[in-house]
Amino acid sequence: MEYYAQPISKLIGRLTKLPGVGPKTAQRLAFYIMEAPKQEAEELALAINEVKDKIRYCSVCNNLTENELCNICSNSERNTSTICIVESPKDIIAMEKTGEYKGLYHVLHGSISPMEGIGPEDIKIKELLPRIKDGDVEEVILATDPNVEGEATAMYIARLLNPLGVTTSRIAHGLPVGGDLEYADEVTLSKALEGRKEV
Amino acid sequence: MEYYAQPISKLIGRLTKLPGVGPKTAQRLAFYIMEAPKQEAEELALAINEVKDKIRYCSVCNNLTENELCNICSNSERNTSTICIVESPKDIIAMEKTGEYKGLYHVLHGSISPMEGIGPEDIKIKELLPRIKDGDVEEVILATDPNVEGEATAMYIARLLNPLGVTTSRIAHGLPVGGDLEYADEVTLSKALEGRKEV
Repeated sequence: MEYYAQPISKLIGRLTKLPGVGPKTAQRLAFYIMEAPKQEAEELALAINEVKDKIRYCSVCNNLTENELCNICSNSERNTSTICIVESPKDIIAMEKTGEYKGLYHVLHGSISPMEGIGPEDIKIKELLPRIKDGDVEEVILATDPNVEGEATAMYIARLLNPLGVTTSRIAHGLPVGGDLEYADEVTLSKALEGRKEV
Repeated sequence: MEYYAQPISKLIGRLTKLPGVGPKTAQRLAFYIMEAPKQEAEELALAINEVKDKIRYCSVCNNLTENELCNICSNSERNTSTICIVESPKDIIAMEKTGEYKGLYHVLHGSISPMEGIGPEDIKIKELLPRIKDGDVEEVILATDPNVEGEATAMYIARLLNPLGVTTSRIAHGLPVGGDLEYADEVTLSKALEGRKEV
């Protein structure tokens, strides 16, 4: 026997596809939507459609934007001599929240992963070269994730940029602030030792 | 500075209104929707709109349905001599999953709560009386939640139905199956003792 009316089970099915949403959460969300004011549900549906219709990649750095250029590339106050390379637009948000970085970005939309069959040509690496050749870039900061794929991608790009005479740097590995030395894994601790600085 | 393009922050804002969805989860869901195939996002938006457009209350029992009658009230195989009173349509799903109950339901859409200013006239109690007077109902099962509001609601309805000569029963309180006597609270344990049966 079918417990739910058809539109309800359809909505639950669609919600279950979202990350971290299982059948129980999907049921709770669906019932919330049914009981919410019509306007609130309509606004949610509209926001979903709008984000698909209006959001595209920035033509320079591949960040998400609703215009030709993202609000970082179009900001004349940003320092155009530095490009920070990240794997995803989410990483830009994390970097911006530090308030420390004033340069530009380049989003790869992925990382090199031979295991998953993702090569350098599958992510947005080739779009990076003209930016460095044509512009006044002095430093490229490699801020890919600190895992195997991120390291491989950083190394690949570093080697690619080597002949262009631009400084390439990699963000530091070490103990996270607020962490506990006792519980740090060996690799992180080795990296922290290796990267020690005179005080 | 605004980190997200406007349609993205709008979508994150709308998602944050859902129960159990905080800013971090909303961000993850929004990025998932942006990266998902356009069709999947459109289907989700459509399902949200459809559920608001098509779902209404069953004209007999107030369950959620897309037709005049819900699929329980319109099922001729259900036993019409029993009505089970529940607080919400979700409770019907829970009851149906037991596979034990073959009668009809009545959804109150809430419970009496003087603390929150919800009186008997604010929930669907008055719609219950004609069903009992006109029909062939023999037993009314009070399956409101086992908390203060649910008990008060059950008692109120029991007193209301008393003159109508219909049997009223309350679902049993006791230890949950698979539970641990050691960790049961005093009230539950008292209720379990009180409701003991000869074996």
